[in-house]
Amino acid sequence: MTYCLAIKVNKGLVFASDSRTNAGVDYIATYSKMRRYAWPGERACVLLTSGSLATSQAVMNAINRDLEHPKPEFSLRSGKHLHEVAQYIGRLSQAEQQRHAKAMEKSGNSAESSFIFGGQIEGQEPEIYMIYPQGNFIAASPETPYLQIGENKYGKPILDRIISPQTCVEDAARCAIVSLDSTIRSNISVAAPIELAIHTTNKIEEPYHQSFNNNSKFYKSLQKQWNEGLKRAFNRLPRFDWEKT
Amino acid sequence: MTYCLAIKVNKGLVFASDSRTNAGVDYIATYSKMRRYAWPGERACVLLTSGSLATSQAVMNAINRDLEHPKPEFSLRSGKHLHEVAQYIGRLSQAEQQRHAKAMEKSGNSAESSFIFGGQIEGQEPEIYMIYPQGNFIAASPETPYLQIGENKYGKPILDRIISPQTCVEDAARCAIVSLDSTIRSNISVAAPIELAIHTTNKIEEPYHQSFNNNSKFYKSLQKQWNEGLKRAFNRLPRFDWEKT
Repeated sequence: MTYCLAIKVNKGLVFASDSRTNAGVDYIATYSKMRRYAWPGERACVLLTSGSLATSQAVMNAINRDLEHPKPEFSLRSGKHLHEVAQYIGRLSQAEQQRHAKAMEKSGNSAESSFIFGGQIEGQEPEIYMIYPQGNFIAASPETPYLQIGENKYGKPILDRIISPQTCVEDAARCAIVSLDSTIRSNISVAAPIELAIHTTNKIEEPYHQSFNNNSKFYKSLQKQWNEGLKRAFNRLPRFDWEKT
Repeated sequence: MTYCLAIKVNKGLVFASDSRTNAGVDYIATYSKMRRYAWPGERACVLLTSGSLATSQAVMNAINRDLEHPKPEFSLRSGKHLHEVAQYIGRLSQAEQQRHAKAMEKSGNSAESSFIFGGQIEGQEPEIYMIYPQGNFIAASPETPYLQIGENKYGKPILDRIISPQTCVEDAARCAIVSLDSTIRSNISVAAPIELAIHTTNKIEEPYHQSFNNNSKFYKSLQKQWNEGLKRAFNRLPRFDWEKT
């Protein structure tokens, strides 16, 4: 499995992903699930992938082929609006899945992939989209300022408590790391390195990027302080009646 | 859906359950998912259910019929060891599912139910078991001191951080309520009232029982303090390098 998420706050976009890929428990590998594409002053975007690694890689290859093509029918750079690009990624994903549908059905496996895509085109609003395996997609909104793919349940409660459109970009990034860390602790199919990308609203440039492995000083200190903070919060919870006497 | 859990610590057993039942989103009801059975000085036990309400109710009815029967083949009270009783509950569940298997398959619905069963027989160790829809079951262990059924992912991270065999019964009970509260906040198929039952090791009597609805003073104060404690912990997390200058 995988766990990726994107958060849209007023001041920017935060993207985070784990790096574990597995086909069963005896074939575990590390792959980056994040791609950044930027043309400074023009557009900046980030793509996160989950599901079939073969489909995800094929889609990323197709995106690159179209970007290198001198006169592509459509490309990540040519779409006038980000939702057109989301539509395009959905088309690529569906085309790749169809190509192997018969064989996959026979084997009982799934070639489905989900994507989170977001960024900003100069002069337009920043956006994030979650693209379903079927190719259709939804956007984040002020009421639902984050989107998740993969193992999304373990890390949801903290997002529900912390994130709102007014949250600053740094807090959104910390919350994304906490959400990933909780998932990593409870599910072996999700693991570090954690990749983080940040796009600041109206700064159309290469998104800030950082990768945290288990030895990263920042990640270790965040893990320790979060664990201690939770225990402190837990120890302050109200006592039952019978404990008071 | 449902979310129920049981925790086994050295000093006792904690059981907790939500009370929401739904068939689709337009048929939502409140049902207790906890049954307590006690013969003071002899045996005390608790049963939690999730999955098909019809199967769960049929199993609980069958248990009661056997208890009322003057000479039952087997009953909750006659099993010499708790794992025999767990086996018996698995048999009842499978028999009920088989009875409707053909019709359920036709309708595309599932009659599967999962159970958590635990307690203590005088002179024996306390135990908790999770009984799968197939009728087989697993016990908790010092390394895995809790068992969950239903929507188990949202509330797992806090259990993984707090619970060990040395945890006191009261902390285990508070942790169970926090685990349920996090699930309730993030998933509308899980809802209050929260039922809590506590068995103290070697006190073979009616387990302590309390029910918390959204207006319960204790539950409201726990929710508020947990939320504030989490926010405090979050605000103390380390800053990124660029925030320090």
